[in-house]
Parts: sequence; C-alpha cells; structure tokens
Amino acid sequence: MSLRTIATIPVGVLALALTAQAAGADPAKLRQEVRAWRTAHEKEVVGELSGLLALRNVASDRADIQRNADHLLGMLRRRGFQARLLTAGDAPPAVYGEIPASGVAPGAKHTVVFYAHYDGQPADPADWGGADPWKPVLRTGAPGPDTKDVDLASAAAPLNPEWRLYARSASDDKGPIVAMLAALDALKAAGVKPAVNIKMFLEGEEEDGSTHLTSILQEHRDTLKADAWILADGPVHQTRKMQVVFGARGVMGLELTTYGPARALHSGHYGNWAPNPAALLVELLAGLRGPNGEIRIAGFEDDVRPLTESEKAAAAAMPPVEDALRQELAVGWTEGMMEGGTERLLERVMRPALNIRGLQSAQVGRGARNAIPTEATASIDFRLVPDQTPEKVRERTEAHIRSLGFHVVHEVPDLETRRTHAKVVLVRWDDGYAAARTSMDLPVSRAVIRAVDDMLGEPALRVPMLGGSVPVSMFVDTLNVPVITMPIVNHDNSQHAAHENLRLQNLWDGIEVFAALFTGLDW
Amino acid sequence: MSLRTIATIPVGVLALALTAQAAGADPAKLRQEVRAWRTAHEKEVVGELSGLLALRNVASDRADIQRNADHLLGMLRRRGFQARLLTAGDAPPAVYGEIPASGVAPGAKHTVVFYAHYDGQPADPADWGGADPWKPVLRTGAPGPDTKDVDLASAAAPLNPEWRLYARSASDDKGPIVAMLAALDALKAAGVKPAVNIKMFLEGEEEDGSTHLTSILQEHRDTLKADAWILADGPVHQTRKMQVVFGARGVMGLELTTYGPARALHSGHYGNWAPNPAALLVELLAGLRGPNGEIRIAGFEDDVRPLTESEKAAAAAMPPVEDALRQELAVGWTEGMMEGGTERLLERVMRPALNIRGLQSAQVGRGARNAIPTEATASIDFRLVPDQTPEKVRERTEAHIRSLGFHVVHEVPDLETRRTHAKVVLVRWDDGYAAARTSMDLPVSRAVIRAVDDMLGEPALRVPMLGGSVPVSMFVDTLNVPVITMPIVNHDNSQHAAHENLRLQNLWDGIEVFAALFTGLDW
Repeated sequence: MSLRTIATIPVGVLALALTAQAAGADPAKLRQEVRAWRTAHEKEVVGELSGLLALRNVASDRADIQRNADHLLGMLRRRGFQARLLTAGDAPPAVYGEIPASGVAPGAKHTVVFYAHYDGQPADPADWGGADPWKPVLRTGAPGPDTKDVDLASAAAPLNPEWRLYARSASDDKGPIVAMLAALDALKAAGVKPAVNIKMFLEGEEEDGSTHLTSILQEHRDTLKADAWILADGPVHQTRKMQVVFGARGVMGLELTTYGPARALHSGHYGNWAPNPAALLVELLAGLRGPNGEIRIAGFEDDVRPLTESEKAAAAAMPPVEDALRQELAVGWTEGMMEGGTERLLERVMRPALNIRGLQSAQVGRGARNAIPTEATASIDFRLVPDQTPEKVRERTEAHIRSLGFHVVHEVPDLETRRTHAKVVLVRWDDGYAAARTSMDLPVSRAVIRAVDDMLGEPALRVPMLGGSVPVSMFVDTLNVPVITMPIVNHDNSQHAAHENLRLQNLWDGIEVFAALFTGLDW
Repeated sequence: MSLRTIATIPVGVLALALTAQAAGADPAKLRQEVRAWRTAHEKEVVGELSGLLALRNVASDRADIQRNADHLLGMLRRRGFQARLLTAGDAPPAVYGEIPASGVAPGAKHTVVFYAHYDGQPADPADWGGADPWKPVLRTGAPGPDTKDVDLASAAAPLNPEWRLYARSASDDKGPIVAMLAALDALKAAGVKPAVNIKMFLEGEEEDGSTHLTSILQEHRDTLKADAWILADGPVHQTRKMQVVFGARGVMGLELTTYGPARALHSGHYGNWAPNPAALLVELLAGLRGPNGEIRIAGFEDDVRPLTESEKAAAAAMPPVEDALRQELAVGWTEGMMEGGTERLLERVMRPALNIRGLQSAQVGRGARNAIPTEATASIDFRLVPDQTPEKVRERTEAHIRSLGFHVVHEVPDLETRRTHAKVVLVRWDDGYAAARTSMDLPVSRAVIRAVDDMLGEPALRVPMLGGSVPVSMFVDTLNVPVITMPIVNHDNSQHAAHENLRLQNLWDGIEVFAALFTGLDW
C-alpha cells in the first residue's frame, strides 16, 4: 500500500488532540544543555555557515556544486559520519552520510534520514544592490535603511539574536544543514547519543527541479533504507511559531515563447499589420490564468484530492497572519479576496497555483525602441497539489493552449513553421514533480510532533501541506516512506529573491529542535 | 485656412491622373549628368556617409548629438550653405543651412525647406552580434549567412549597387542627408543651379519624440519661412518603387507598470495569495488591445478622419506586397487577416495602432526564479491618425484603464498607496505628436509628383499617409505649410532594429531624385 493511499484515510481531528508522551530524555534538561553549548559557540557556528555560504551553488554550474559537495563531505566527516557522494548518471551529487552504530544510543530501533539541499536559486548582484550574493554578510536586522553590517570577528558574544546572516542559501537551505550539524556537536558535548540511526542526505539540485533525485533514490535504495525522512527545508510560520509540516506542493516550470516577424520591424510602417508577439503572449497568458489567481486551463483541477477532516482542522487552527502580511508586503488586496473567496493564506496554498515568474520581450524604459519585437517569452511555475501529476498537467495545459488557437511546438520553430502556422508557441517544460501529503496520524507523525512540542515547551503548529515545493513526492513514490518536514528558518528570509537572510534566533532554535528529533523520537 | 482643412477637400481621383508637365530643365539630360557624376564619386559619397555614421547619435546623449551637429555644419558649409545651429531652451540643436541667392537660379520664386533628422534609435551591440552599431561596415548584401564584409578603401569602383552600408542611422536618417548633399555636388559639377531657394533643417531628436521641435519652429519661424517642406525620411515602397508621401501617422509612447508585493516572494509559499504583477499587466494589456490589433480603448477611434476619394484611390493603386512580405518575414498571418478585415498593408496603416514594444518582469530563461515579481512593465507605442490628438488619446486611455479597475498614478507609488489601493498602475507618457495628411491636389503637391516622375521616367507611387511617424503635424500646426515626404531608403533597412543598413542603389537613386526636386519644382 502506497503512502499516498495511507494519507487519504480519514482520521478525524485527532491531529490536534495529540499530547506529549514520555520521550527518551528529559526535554527541559536537554534544552538547557544544548542552549548552553550554543551560547558558548555562537561565533563558530555562524563562521562555519559563512564558510559554506561563500561557495557559489547554482545547480547548473557543476564545478561550483562539486566544491560545495566536497566541503560538506568534510563537515560531515568531522562529526564522525561515514560520508560519500551519491550520484546517478550525470546528476549533481547528493552528499550522503551515516553515523556508525558506535555513535548512536544502544537499542535504537528506527532509522531516520534527515534531508536538506545545498544548491540555491540563481542570484543577480544587480538585484542585491551590487553585493555578491555569495559573500555572506552579518547585518543588524531585516533589510532596511537602518540595518548595518556587523563584523563577526570583532563582535562580542553572545550575538544579538535579531542579527541576520545575508547570502544566497542562508535560509534555503544551507542554514538548516549547519543547524543539524551543530545540534550533533551540542549533543556530543552533553554526552547524549542520538536515539535513532541517523542518515543525512543533502541534495544538489533541488532549486533546479530535482531532475535526477528519483534516479539517485532508486540507485541507492538500500543505502537510503529508513523508517522515515525528515526534511529540513522551508520557513517557520509567519508568526515565528514553529510548525511541523506533513506535505508540500509540487512544482513544474513552463516557458512559453510566441513569435512575430523574423526581424524586428518599425512599428509605424508595420504596426497593426505584422503580428505582435507580445500581444499574442498576453492573449495566451490571459487564457491560462486570470488576475485573481484563477487557473483557466480546462480540467486543471479534476485531480485535486480534497483535504481530510484532520487536515481541515489543522489548517483552520493556524493563527491569522493575513492583515499583518498585507501591511508588510504593501498589497491592498490578495487574489482570494478579489474573487469573493477566502483570503486565508494557508487555505489558498492548499490549491494549485500558476505563477508568472517572468516576462520578456524586447526592452522597456530608456532602451525601448519603436519596433515590433520578434518574440516574447513568459516564464511560469505551477504549484501542484495531490493527486495532480506533472504528466496530466502538461497534457491539459498543451491541449488548452491548442484550444486557444495556437500551434504548439517543443523545439525552436524554423521559419517555415512560422510561415505556415498562424500563431506558433514554443512550449518548454522543466522537469517537475508532484505534491504529497503524509497522514498526520501515523505513529512516526505523532512521535515527531511530540518531540518538537516537548522541546519547545508548547505545541508547534501542524501544517497539512506547505505552499512551497520540496520533492516529497519523489521520496514517497520511490521509497514508500513517511516524509515529514521540519522548517526552522525565518519566514521573512527573502528566499529565492535578493537579500536572502537567516535570523540568528532561528538558527539557535533550529539547533534545539534538531537535537530533540535526534534524541526524542520514540515510536 | 489651415492645411488640415485644405486636406479634407474631396478632390476625386485626380491624383492618379497627374501627368508630367514641362519642368525647368530636361529631366533625361539632368539624370544622365547626375548619374555620371555619381559613378565617378561613389567611394567619396560612401566615405562621407561612413564618417557621419561613425558618430554615436542617441538623442538623449547631448555630447554625442553636439558632435554630430558640428560635423553636419562642416558638411553644409563645404557646399556653400550659410549654416548654423537652431535651438530652443535645452533642445538638442537642429542644424540649419540656406543657400545664398548667388547659389540659386535667378528668378527662383519659391522657397523649400528640406528636412531630415540626424539622431538615431538606441542600439545594443548584443543585438548586432557584438558589433558596434556606430562602426559602419560595407557588406555584400542584406543580412544573412552569405553576406560578407567589404573593404571600401580597396573595393573597385563602380561599387556593386546591391552592397549595403550597415550602421545605426544608415537609412534612418543620415543616408538621405548625404544623398541631398551629393545631389548638390552633382548639380554643381553639371553647372545647374537649384530652381528654388533651398533651406535645410536637420533635426536632432526625432527618434526621441521631437519634444522640442515645436519650440524650435516657433522661435525660428522667420528663418524657416518657406512655401513647402520636403521631408527626407522613411523607406521606399516594398516593391522598391519610389513613392511620394503626403502624410505620416503620429506617435506617442506609454509605459505601464503594475505592482505586486513590496519584495519578491517565494511563489510556493505565497503563490495564488499575493497579487502577481505580471498577471495584472496581462489583464491590463488584454483590456487595451486584442491579439488582432484591435484597440479596445473606449472611444479611441472617435476622432479618426475618413480618407478622401483621392486618398482611397491612391491607396488602392498600391502594388500588392503582402504575400512577399509574409514570406520574407516568416509570418503565417497578419492582424487584419485574422479579424476578418483587410490584409492590405497600406490600408492597415491608415488606421491607428497600439504596439507593445517591450515587456519586462523579473527574468525568463536560466535566470528565472520561482518567485512572485514585485512589478511588471509594458512599453507601448501608439500610432495616431488625423484628427486624433495626443491629449485625447491620453485622456481616453487613462479613463479606460480606470474602467478596468486600476488605480492610476503618474509618479512611482509609495508603499502606502500600494497598501490602500487594490490594483495600482504607474502610467508614464512620452511626449508625442499628432498625425497629418497634406492634400495630394495642392499645386506644390502636383509639382513634386511631376518632378519625381520626370526624373524617374515613370510614375512614382503616391501614398496618402506613411505608417511610420515623422513630426509632420508639428510643421503643419506651427508653420501652416504644406509638407510632403520623399523617402529614398530601402524598405528592408532594419530601421529601428539591429543591423540597420542602406542599399547603395537606394543612395544612388536618392541623389537623382533630390537633384530633380532641387531643379525641377515649378508651380
């Protein structure tokens, strides 16, 4: 029975009624010991993270990725991991490590793989105010005019927990890697051994669509055998509360290019005769998605699996963040609001989404010329929910594009193709992956919630599915294993954008939570 | 009575029935003499044009423009012009020259101003295959894989007339300036004096919207006093036939920017909750213009003056070019065709147009990130026809944008504005100008047609209005003078785009046509 099937069993509202049970160690004592170690080692932890962030990590640049992988191997081996690279074909390597039996508490009966990714989104220094996104800088707070640089070497410890470390991947996802390793350092200092067998799997192409992940998982199935995977990715809740996450939306990239004349034409001499590719792109995009977020692709939502009662109850229990977010983000409306539906963020991200992530045709501003462009391109990312599949999404999207009167091609069309068809569109898909939701009522799900709640001293939020994508479905489909996500980074980390940052308090909290998971999982 | 009014008098189909009358000189003999001079001086003419093209000439760069103006003063003075710069306020200077009475045939009763512009559109070397657009190169033909560079210095004369000179402004509009001056050189060599008083007016900001042209014309009204203006701009007909043009569409630039969240947001965590500025831009553009060129702005065509019978007859007599153009441009359709209307190019450009000349939001291709962009921008140029005015177009467009539910601002909105309005759009207009059409039945109109036909030995085409914009309405409105356009450059010159070029045969033809106008105007 696949996990997908398990996850659809209705389980009522039990998820919210979970209470702490006895864990392996005294959570309060453990918290005190981990915190004491961290307070004494803050600058070393930030320094180790800075060293990792200084390595460029766009997945398409293999030489950079290899440097990251080698660096991570060293970090794991220094903690006693038996570590090596896992590859499949020409995949960017995953960094793998396991703690030998001697490093784990006797009688540990379960094995858990802890996952993070070390590659990052592309970044343009022009967007970062000219700063190199791979030169980490410690600053006094969130991005803003009053925020100043701090010199780590000369800063007095303890560091101000509101300070933030700025660099590509500070939060997404190198910070969590360092939090996990620091948690192991803290446990070692406290003389506490992990209560589960720990394997670590650090992916190198998550931000590039995890193209090879399934192959790597298949090829190294035995190495990766485990009772559960815990993913260290994504942000904490907008209220800064910790949350345990049971799924994630899937993602697919799509690029659409429409064509005008073979050469740019004077818009006076040929305007409203020669086809305008930007106007065609507008027509096409308007046919795919409305301004209120509504997806107009016929049949697109046919495969959407409804939420269970537990999932609905957990979603409804989330604290309201919408008013504060609208204020912070300076938006006068949200898409759900405008179509007369919900404006609750979590309810909105339980649905599939079509995001226009980029538009390009000729030039705007001072470089604009009075010409009909030769082509226009839109870059799109879809967010999928269970049980949509990339295959079905591709199929329905292309059928819909054809129904709008476009001739779909998958390779750059030659001039003869452009001559013989009225509206040609080049459709290019990135490899994507499906969404997944793990049941909140599995024994391991309850154990994770219990360990986290015990360490925090209060209940964490439970999120049925994260809006952001991590390749949960690949683990579930390939390994048939429960997957739970444990985010630690600040929600306002500018993930995927300029000025990505990690708030130090989130790094400290992450060390404590991972220490709890390493030692407190009992099921 | 203004020229605008004159132009609306119905005159039947007389325009097509015009026949050659006796001009001042024997056209065949003059043609022979001009051609003989040109054949002996081809390399000098191309060399002089190359020298002019080597000067960067984007209107916004005043230092570059000044260098062009100084260079042109020298070129005029070497031909005996009394030349100086005309300015108004901080306008880029117009270069002005007049031939003193001693240089003109005795008894010349009319004065004609010959106009061209010396500034050019911006150009990006990246679009020119890395070549500097201001480093002229002589090549063996139209852009293509078999076209080779030619070294002018070592080329044998006569030059192959199918060769082309490549550079920004080779055709638009420095080539015609050199053609006019070479025509004067040829006349001088033949001992023939111009039959009209010649004034030359070379504008320095036509490609930047002719912002200051009206001021310059007003301030120098007495200097510029004349019986007619002849504009040397625009291309010959697509069949390579010469055409005399009696008007031009107007132009206006518009830039629209829509807003999303104040910072780029992870499209997974916020996708289909936070407003997407690219989707808003798509909605807005789809509300302004359809993919078939139809303008959806309410009342936009209310002020369109119908064509007269002469104008309709002249338009109908234009040779069909559409099939060949579609083949050459590799387009499988044209906008008129798709909406069930005409596919005749000239009929289409008799109407107003809305061209999307650029789109920009975040990035596409390898730089695309899974984020909701903060803003999206479209750059638009309108083409106006008589009697639309820029004021009315602005007014109706903004009213229409508001009717689509957008909050219009004219300065970059602050965050509070973005918080308190659902859909904010920044609307920025370039200064533009109206269209104009001069009657084809004025005495001067007939004289121009006669002189050109005589020199060619066959009737030139007559075009009621050019699709492209030259600031005809500014001359008409400011000086109340008939304005006729005499294009000479090849239609496939990649004007306003990369690889702009001038075919040598067009330069040679231009020299003969201007020699005819200088000596043959008799009314």
